[in-house]
Order: sequence, then structure tokens, then C-alpha cells
Amino acid sequence: MLITMHPQATQEEIKEVVKQIESIGFKPHLIPGAQRTAIGITGNTGTIDPVTFEYLPGVSDVIRVSKPYKLVSREVKPENTVVKVGSVSIGTDDLTIIAGPCSVETLEQTMAVAEVVHSCGIGLFRAGAYKPRTSPYAFQGLGLEALKILAEVRDRYGLQIVTEALDEKSLELVEKYADMIQIGARNMQNFSLLRQAGQTKKPVLLKRGMSATLEELLLAAEYILSEGNYQVVLCERGVRTFADHTRNTLDLSIVPSVHRLSHLPILVDPSHGTGRREKVIPMARAAVAVGADGVIVEVHCQPEKALSDGPQALLPDMLVDMVDQLRQIHAVIHKERSKTQKV
Amino acid sequence: MLITMHPQATQEEIKEVVKQIESIGFKPHLIPGAQRTAIGITGNTGTIDPVTFEYLPGVSDVIRVSKPYKLVSREVKPENTVVKVGSVSIGTDDLTIIAGPCSVETLEQTMAVAEVVHSCGIGLFRAGAYKPRTSPYAFQGLGLEALKILAEVRDRYGLQIVTEALDEKSLELVEKYADMIQIGARNMQNFSLLRQAGQTKKPVLLKRGMSATLEELLLAAEYILSEGNYQVVLCERGVRTFADHTRNTLDLSIVPSVHRLSHLPILVDPSHGTGRREKVIPMARAAVAVGADGVIVEVHCQPEKALSDGPQALLPDMLVDMVDQLRQIHAVIHKERSKTQKV
Amino acid sequence: MLITMHPQATQEEIKEVVKQIESIGFKPHLIPGAQRTAIGITGNTGTIDPVTFEYLPGVSDVIRVSKPYKLVSREVKPENTVVKVGSVSIGTDDLTIIAGPCSVETLEQTMAVAEVVHSCGIGLFRAGAYKPRTSPYAFQGLGLEALKILAEVRDRYGLQIVTEALDEKSLELVEKYADMIQIGARNMQNFSLLRQAGQTKKPVLLKRGMSATLEELLLAAEYILSEGNYQVVLCERGVRTFADHTRNTLDLSIVPSVHRLSHLPILVDPSHGTGRREKVIPMARAAVAVGADGVIVEVHCQPEKALSDGPQALLPDMLVDMVDQLRQIHAVIHKERSKTQKV
Amino acid sequence: MLITMHPQATQEEIKEVVKQIESIGFKPHLIPGAQRTAIGITGNTGTIDPVTFEYLPGVSDVIRVSKPYKLVSREVKPENTVVKVGSVSIGTDDLTIIAGPCSVETLEQTMAVAEVVHSCGIGLFRAGAYKPRTSPYAFQGLGLEALKILAEVRDRYGLQIVTEALDEKSLELVEKYADMIQIGARNMQNFSLLRQAGQTKKPVLLKRGMSATLEELLLAAEYILSEGNYQVVLCERGVRTFADHTRNTLDLSIVPSVHRLSHLPILVDPSHGTGRREKVIPMARAAVAVGADGVIVEVHCQPEKALSDGPQALLPDMLVDMVDQLRQIHAVIHKERSKTQKV
Repeated sequence: MLITMHPQATQEEIKEVVKQIESIGFKPHLIPGAQRTAIGITGNTGTIDPVTFEYLPGVSDVIRVSKPYKLVSREVKPENTVVKVGSVSIGTDDLTIIAGPCSVETLEQTMAVAEVVHSCGIGLFRAGAYKPRTSPYAFQGLGLEALKILAEVRDRYGLQIVTEALDEKSLELVEKYADMIQIGARNMQNFSLLRQAGQTKKPVLLKRGMSATLEELLLAAEYILSEGNYQVVLCERGVRTFADHTRNTLDLSIVPSVHRLSHLPILVDPSHGTGRREKVIPMARAAVAVGADGVIVEVHCQPEKALSDGPQALLPDMLVDMVDQLRQIHAVIHKERSKTQKV
Repeated sequence: MLITMHPQATQEEIKEVVKQIESIGFKPHLIPGAQRTAIGITGNTGTIDPVTFEYLPGVSDVIRVSKPYKLVSREVKPENTVVKVGSVSIGTDDLTIIAGPCSVETLEQTMAVAEVVHSCGIGLFRAGAYKPRTSPYAFQGLGLEALKILAEVRDRYGLQIVTEALDEKSLELVEKYADMIQIGARNMQNFSLLRQAGQTKKPVLLKRGMSATLEELLLAAEYILSEGNYQVVLCERGVRTFADHTRNTLDLSIVPSVHRLSHLPILVDPSHGTGRREKVIPMARAAVAVGADGVIVEVHCQPEKALSDGPQALLPDMLVDMVDQLRQIHAVIHKERSKTQKV
Repeated sequence: MLITMHPQATQEEIKEVVKQIESIGFKPHLIPGAQRTAIGITGNTGTIDPVTFEYLPGVSDVIRVSKPYKLVSREVKPENTVVKVGSVSIGTDDLTIIAGPCSVETLEQTMAVAEVVHSCGIGLFRAGAYKPRTSPYAFQGLGLEALKILAEVRDRYGLQIVTEALDEKSLELVEKYADMIQIGARNMQNFSLLRQAGQTKKPVLLKRGMSATLEELLLAAEYILSEGNYQVVLCERGVRTFADHTRNTLDLSIVPSVHRLSHLPILVDPSHGTGRREKVIPMARAAVAVGADGVIVEVHCQPEKALSDGPQALLPDMLVDMVDQLRQIHAVIHKERSKTQKV
Repeated sequence: MLITMHPQATQEEIKEVVKQIESIGFKPHLIPGAQRTAIGITGNTGTIDPVTFEYLPGVSDVIRVSKPYKLVSREVKPENTVVKVGSVSIGTDDLTIIAGPCSVETLEQTMAVAEVVHSCGIGLFRAGAYKPRTSPYAFQGLGLEALKILAEVRDRYGLQIVTEALDEKSLELVEKYADMIQIGARNMQNFSLLRQAGQTKKPVLLKRGMSATLEELLLAAEYILSEGNYQVVLCERGVRTFADHTRNTLDLSIVPSVHRLSHLPILVDPSHGTGRREKVIPMARAAVAVGADGVIVEVHCQPEKALSDGPQALLPDMLVDMVDQLRQIHAVIHKERSKTQKV
């Protein structure tokens, strides 16, 4: 942490700040400047709020320096983390694709999509059993019945199942039935749920909150790792901005930022990120081109009849087309990425 | 819902859209325009996603018209809702003030603040027993021990207790020990928690999410009302923007907007809304001046020693000063507000 | 400026950074920390971009410390600036109100509003002669003809004229005909226009850009002061956010922030800040309550016939009502503000 | 435009609205709904502000339907516009790359970069002669001297020159010396400058404002086209959001949105969009992958000595590497794009 004093700050004021710093057990370092004095603070300052010093007489600014997260940091673990979901690895040089319908609606509808996903050589299947819906009157998911249908999908097609948990009860069931636990954007700071996910043995897909900073996303992941579960994959799914031409603004620049600061893999969700079918493939291409470890997309055989988010679902032939394009783009950037280890 | 066709749309395309509308059980109304045709849709369209029609040939735009919320709407219940917390009423012509420390740290610290709050003639006491913290390494609250201390505060000072619940377990305990259940900004779309709060018999203080639209806030309240609990108070606590001079941007204009669309009371939290002690009183004055039903603020006798959010806590004498100013401003706007029934 | 090194940074890397700092003429100060080394930089670092050092081997972060603005800063001039517009002073303990129609449409319409404004005891009249319109097909203002009408308003009612300049030509005419030059939000970073305004002898009303940070607003003012014109008044008029219940989100917390960092007065524009007539009075009250030096509002006698922004214009009787409410609120906060010199 | 009445609206209130609509010369269309009546309005309603009707008794909502822009719209001109800058065409199936230093600093520095750009087979050279700088104390560009240096670059390397104009005077000079006039983000709504650019014979590169919506961007272009200059290229360069890990948030999803609504080409600027050298190549790849017509990037041979924006400038070998990667990605998406005409 660094404190800068006002140009007119008196020696007494400076002494007082130094005393305060020592009184809470940290070490001050005076930096007498041309116009003003600055005071560096060392020790593990991660837990002090900069503002603590801001109102001492003579203080101009207080700036936090050290990062508050540890386990997710590349400084602590330089090599990339590879997350294993059954037979599939995320965070390697291979491109990860997760696909499936927004929700499990019926056995038939789910199997039909699974058939398409499997036929594209995709190993991970996503579909919602528990749906967080803005309106209490909207379809909320089939729950346990859906989880059982997803188990059948795994049995029939060997697809690994990724599905969202909303609360304590659903997390227990998702852990039991699925292969990867998804924590949605609305729950990115549901800390009880994060801790519970950290105590499971299943890998976790953690989506960025709608207005979460990079630091908040990494700290949410830190909650999971701090409970002992190191199998975490991050996911960018769009943030809230003034822009009204898409449902959310997909912030692809977070991908290289995550790769620089953390060893965790990061996927991109262009379906929720745009909310518009015709933008999913272009943004999925962009996600792979920027260096994401993969994408997660929604597919439906009859989107116009979907009980949720039909308008953003790809049609089967669009999925085939997308996978083909993504693999070509991934091949282009692959060499360069492996060179630089994604940093 | 309204659909506008492209100027070049053919009669066949228009017929097709009309057929689609009828096929899902709604009534189309053709509006032949100078440049283009529009098609109105009637019936309860609250549940259709506009985008469902957006990709039919010839369609230019689809606009949703009807509101998705019902029970919280002033259209459904024109008169203001008054929420009773023990002997205190929120949503009347009286100004509501809720004050207390960010967290319960010790019996002494809590009683000391309660003494101050009570001496200001304030009837509602806030203090966190369960704290949602961005970092897993930050103080997380004393939990049940804190709730018992708060019960003592009620016994000794007759203050009604407002405290936050984070999950199923803490909600059960908060319902048992406190007088009003707070759902924090990070949980505004934790729909399981909202439903559970809707099943309790205690009034609920629902804070706006950091990037929640007005409609999402009202729909979050709708979750609680739809479970049978009509005792809900909304709270603006600042939203995420690019602005970096305060922790959040307090969006006071939502107050008249809520009063126009809903019958529920709304408070403002200038402590979290600014994150800066010296801005709390000015913004609290602004909140009362804009017509909020009241404010909720943090107070601490030794903020520099607070385990959380010390920098935004008012000192006791500042609270006294604030209450005095707020009451004077409330008196000024009171007549005008009662005239217009806050709309 | 402060540089923090990675925990694993080598002594060579640290030496290299020190050399770099010296090579560009600044003084490095080593701060050996528990986990990592930090390096303070002194000298006038306002002109270095922190990122200059960010990619040197071993560097973790670079943080800018000193403020880039000077003349507008309270550190340089502690006492409040009072801006004189003819006989009216802005930035004193008196409340400033500027009112008038969005645009000058006709002599009659303008005089009718001026009559109302004057009858409220308001000394400053606003009305657009040159209108920045989002669409090239919208009414663009009467230009010179409007300026002449405004000069008549001054002659007849003794009102001081505040009107916007859009470019070099209009600025010359506005300087000639009006008493205060308004630079609109869209031109807040039109640096040529700012310099030109800085070379005039007339006071300037500078509106905050739609996504300008506090620092950018102060630097825009710095452009004007740096040319020799110290008569600058800032104005908050709402910023762009995801929130869709008002046209813009009025950021009232910038008022105490400006008063803390700068000696310049700041007004608030609740008309453009909300875009909704019924929200103008509540937000104007809030602006005065938060401590703004005054407000600027739009008034129209027949808003439904206005050529621009009719929906946000107050009706004459609403203006009378508002002025009455604002003066009462101003009286309430006046003592406290004078105590604390607005800081 | 569509008006929805309150469920409780009376027949008199509905009649009144209908009368109002007719009184201003438009045609009302009644849509009696299950719960409420809606009223469609036809005629060219582009110029009415929806709020005009919002406060009539019984009115619930007013929604604008028709688009306010015309000349830039794909509805008016379905085929893509190709913009010619000397021998180079923008908006074809070829990938456009514009590269060069942020500013012209010296003849040597400029020629050195031009040499690199030319050697990559790039036909368009960008470099600032007039720099819009947030601080009045920062380097403001060499002006005319820089324009003459750029003219030499054209003579020596046959590169077409793209450079920014800030005001009337600089626009006249840029039109005279350069091949393409850039209007920067800060001037996107400097309507006088837009009109002036519309009266020139040179193609215009129009950058999106920092908080401009898609509609505002298209309307800014409409200003230029409405003056008779149809040679306009749009450019996404990042928007303002709460996210703090990059200087701006590059909104790539605007590319398919522009291609859907307009016939104008759109480029992406990953240098300003990220402000970080190491993110420029990843985001440039993403821009091409999403379907942009090209990119504009900054290059410098000694970024650490650059007078502006050094930290985001690519090094020569990085440019070579980037061009190679972009061409491969462009080849991948080219077929698919030509199929779908970019829509």
C-alpha cells in the first residue's frame, strides 16, 4: 500500500501517519518527493482497506498495491491448470467446446440435441435442470427429473454433463448426477454456494457476474480453491453496459487478462453474451481467436418451441458449421499460443 | 407486443407472421403504415420473448409492451404499501431511518452504537451477523453469536433488528432472531433465497443488485410477493458504472421511478452507495430530498478499528447531525409528497 | 509513481528498472517488502504513462500517484472560486438557479418563459440558439436570430444570458451576445473549443461528458483555465449507464467529490439528467440537498409544442413550486455547508 | 410509434390520445387488447419524441418503432458500400489493415515505421498530426509539419494517409494533405465537424464515441452522408464500462450489428480498445474473426520513447506476426462471410 501526503502536509501529520501504520503492525517507508512525501507500507496489506488512512490529516491519497487473491494467482502457480471432466481436459492445447440446450425440456428434445452434439465430436454436454429466471412466472426447469435425463444422455452418448446448481439442495443433486457443476453469473458472489462447491469433488464452471470486475471474478474462484477444490474453469458471459444492441456486452479482452494473472482456464459463452442467434457464431470465432480455452454454446432442434432462450440457440447445422470454423481458427493461433504459454 | 415488418416485406411474409402469432394462441392486429406494416399482438404476452419473432422473414423489429411483473405493480394496487417492522411503519409520511454498525463485532461495540442510535430517536437497528465478503480471507461475521447480541439490543433499547441473510440456514436463524430480513445486493437474483424469504412471516428489505435494472428489481420483489409475503421494502444502494470517484454510483432517480410503477416503499443506502464517510450525509440528504421513504446508514464508534467497511461508517456525532438535517429536509418536501401521493 | 516487482523478481531485474527510471530523469526509491520489492518514483511524474514500465522483466504493477491537473485543484487554490455572470455570483452561499426553454423558438415563446423566470426572482436565463442534435433531421436551433432574441430578453428583464456554443463560429457569436458560454456534454473533450473558450473574457459553464470521469472533467476545465480564463463553472448532467428508467443516470455524488478536489463551483442539470418532467423537481431538490452550488433547468409554457426536449421541460407553475422548495432545502443545509467550506 | 393505455384508462382518455395524434398530423390505429388498449401511430414518426404522449391521462407507455436514420440504413441500400482510399478499397472481401505510429514525432521516426508498414504489404498508413489529449500539458501533435511529413511518406512508399482532424482548421488541412479524414471518438458528436467532413471529397473514418449507442453511431454517420459524402467507414474502438482490466471495453458484437443494419464497412481499433500492447494482437485476431472489414493498429519502433500511447504500440516484428495471423483467420471466415453477405 502507498500513501501520498498533501504538498502542504506538516512533519507532524507525516509522523502521525507513520505511527498509525506501525500501530496496526505494518512497516512504513518514507519517500520524500519533490512536491510531496509518499509513504510505502509493507507487510501483508491485502486485508487493510486503503480508505482506513484516507482521512488522516495531511493525507492526499492511499493506493492499494498487493493483490487480495492468492491460490488462483499465476504468481503462486506459474503453469496452467488443466481441469479434467471425466475423459475431457480443459486448459490444454485442445479447444474445448461445451454444447447443449438451454434447458432440459423432455427426454426426446434432450436426446435429439445430444445426438447432434455427439456427432460433432464434442465431449461436453450442457443443459439446465435448475433455471435462474428473472421472472417468477417463467419456466424454472425440471429439476431432479432433468438430472436423470442428463444421466441417460451420458450413458447413451458418453457425453460428460455440465449443469447449473442454484442452491444447497440443487448443488448436492448436481454433484451426484453431473460431471461438472456450473455456478451461474447471478450466483458468482453467492459465497455460501461457492464454499459448498469448493467442498465437492467435482470440477466447477464459474461464470463471471454481470458487473463483476476481473478481481472479483478471481476472488470468487479463490473461494472455491480455498475450500480445497482446485478444479475450476472461469467463463466470460457478457457484462452490463449502456450498449443496447446485444443483451450483454461480451468482454473478450478479459481472456488475455485472466491468462496473464491466473493459471485457471477460461471459456466464453457467446450465447448468453449476445442473446442473439446470428451473433453466436461470429462471437464464438472471436472468442477462439482471442485465445479462450474454449466456448460454451446453446443448441436446440426447434428453438421456436424452446421453453427458454430459444432465440439465442443455434440450429443443429449451425453447430456443425461453427465447430468447423472454430477448429480452423484454433489451428491458426495454436502455435503462437503454445509459444507464449497464453501469457 | 408489436412487430414491425420491413418496408420490402411481402404479403406472404406478413401472412406467415400472422399465422405464427395465432399458432401460439395470441391475437394479431394489422397496422398498415405509410412505409411499412406493423402487427400488434394481444393476449398476455408477458411470457413470450420478443426475439421469438425476430428472425421470421420480413420482420424488422419486435417490441415488448406489457410489463412482466404484477403483484408489485401500482396498476394492480394503487395505494402505497406500508410495511410494519414491530412498532415501526415504513412507507408512511414519516421518515424512516435505519442505523447501526456494518457488522456485529462484540457485545460492547454493538451496544455502544445501539445507545447512540436509540438516543437519536431511531427505531430500527442494522448490523451484520453474516457478511458477504468479496475475499474469502476477510471477516465473515459472527453468525449466531451476533444474532444473540442483536436480540439483547432489542431487549435493552426496544430497537427493531434488521440484518442480512445469505443462505437457507442463515435465513432461518435471521427469521427467528431479527425483525426484518435483509436480502443483499449480491443475492437480489438468488431466486431460491427470495422464495424462502417469501415464505417467512417477517418483512423483507430487498437491496438492488449492482447492475440490476428497475424491472429486475421489481421482478425480484415479485418473487417474494408471489410466495405470499407482501411486506417488502426496496433499497437503492448504488450501481456499477465507469465512474471511479465513489465505490458505486448512487442512482437516486430510481426513487421516483419506483414510486410511479410500484406501491412498495423504497429506502436509500448512502453508506454502501458511496463507500466514503464524508459523502454519506450529503447523499442521505439528497435521498430524502428526492422523496425516498427513508435511509439506512452505517455508524461506528471507532471506525478506524472496524472489522469491515470502517471508512464509510459515520461517527456518533455525525449521526446526530445527519438525523437533524434529514428531518428538516423531510419536513420541507412532506406536504408536496402527500399532495402527489409520491407518484 | 510506484512500481511493484514480482515476488520472484531477480536483483538484476530490479537494478534494470532502477536504471530505466534514472535514464528518463526521475529518482527511484527502493522499498524492500516482505513478499516483494516496490520502487517509488519521484519528480514530476504527471507526464509518464505508468504502462511505460509495465513490461520490463520482473515488474508486477505500476501505479500513478500524482494528479495530472493543477490550476483547477484545491491544493493549488484552497478557497472557493466565485464566478461572476453580470450581477450574479455563482459559488457563494447563495443558491444559483438558471432556467429557460431548451431552445429559442420564437420571440413570443422566449419572452413568455423569460417573464416566468424573471417573476421567480431568477437572475440567469438559459435557452439554446445552437442545438447539438443526435439526428441531422432534428431542429438545429435558430442561431444568430436566437442570440438577438436573447439579447432582447436581457434588455427587457435584466436576465443574464447563458447559451451553448458548438464550434468556432458560434462561440464567437455567443461570446458577443451572451453573458455566459455553455460548453455542452458532447463537446467536453472538444479541446479546440475549450482552448477558444479559455481565450474569451466571458465565464464558461462546462458540462460533464456522458462518460467522463471526474479527472477528465477537471482536466477539461484545466484546458480553459490554462488559457487564462479562470471563470469556469462545472455542471453534472447525468452519465451513461445500463439503467434504462431515466435517459441518463444523474451522478450527484460527484458534487462533494468536486468540492473536495477543486475550488470551482458545480451546478446540476436535472432536466437532461433525467429527461422526464416528473423527475426534474425531485432530482433538483436532491441536487441542492447534496450541496450543489445550484441547478439549471428547462421551462416551457407549452412543452407539448416544444421543438426540442419538451417532455423534460417544467411548466411555469412547476418552476414556481420548485424554486420555493429549493430555497427551503438550501436554507436547511446552508449552515452546515458554510461550516465545512463545502469540503 | 405505439402507445399503450393503462388497464383502467377510460374511453374519454383514449379518445383524447387519438385526438392528440391526429392534431399533429399522424394516423392512430386502435388495438383493443385483453387487459388494455394500445394505439399504433403511422406516418413518419421519426421526429416525434415518444415522451410527448407519455403524460396524457391514461397513457401507460409509448414506444418508438421506426428508425431515425435513413441514408446509412441497409433497408435503403441493401448492398455493401465499398469505400475507396486511393488505390485501396475498404468493405470488399479483402481484409483492410491500417497501421502506423500514434503520432508523427519526427521525419525519421515516421519513415522508419512507414518502412515497416509498407514491407508488410499494408496500403494504409495512420499517424496523428493533431492529437486530442485529455491533459492540456500533454504532447498535442506537430500539426501542419506532421502533415507534410505524411505527404512525404505517401510519395516515398505509396501509402495512403489516414489522419485525424480535430476542428475546422485542421480538417481543411487534413483534407488537403491526407487521403482519409479520421473523426475521433471524442468528436463523434461534434456535429459541426461531421457536417464539414460531409462536405469534403475525401473518405471519412468515423470512430465510435466512448459511450455511443449503435444508433448514435449510425446517426453520426448519417450527418456525413446527409451532406453528400457517402464514403464513410465506421470504427469500433472500445467503450466505457466499469471493467478496469483494460483501458476500454472493446465491443466486438457491434460488428455483426452494424453489418445487419447498415451497408457501411466497419473496422476495429484494438490499440485504443485495450491500451495494452500484449492485448492488441489477440483482440485484432478476434476483430477479424467476428467479421470486421479490417483493423487499425498502432506501431512504433521505439515505443518506450513514444511521445504518446507508447504502451499500446506494437513493435515492428509484432506487426509482421499479427498481419500473418490475421490473414490466416480472414481466409478461414471469408467463405462463410461471402455466403451470408456479412448479415
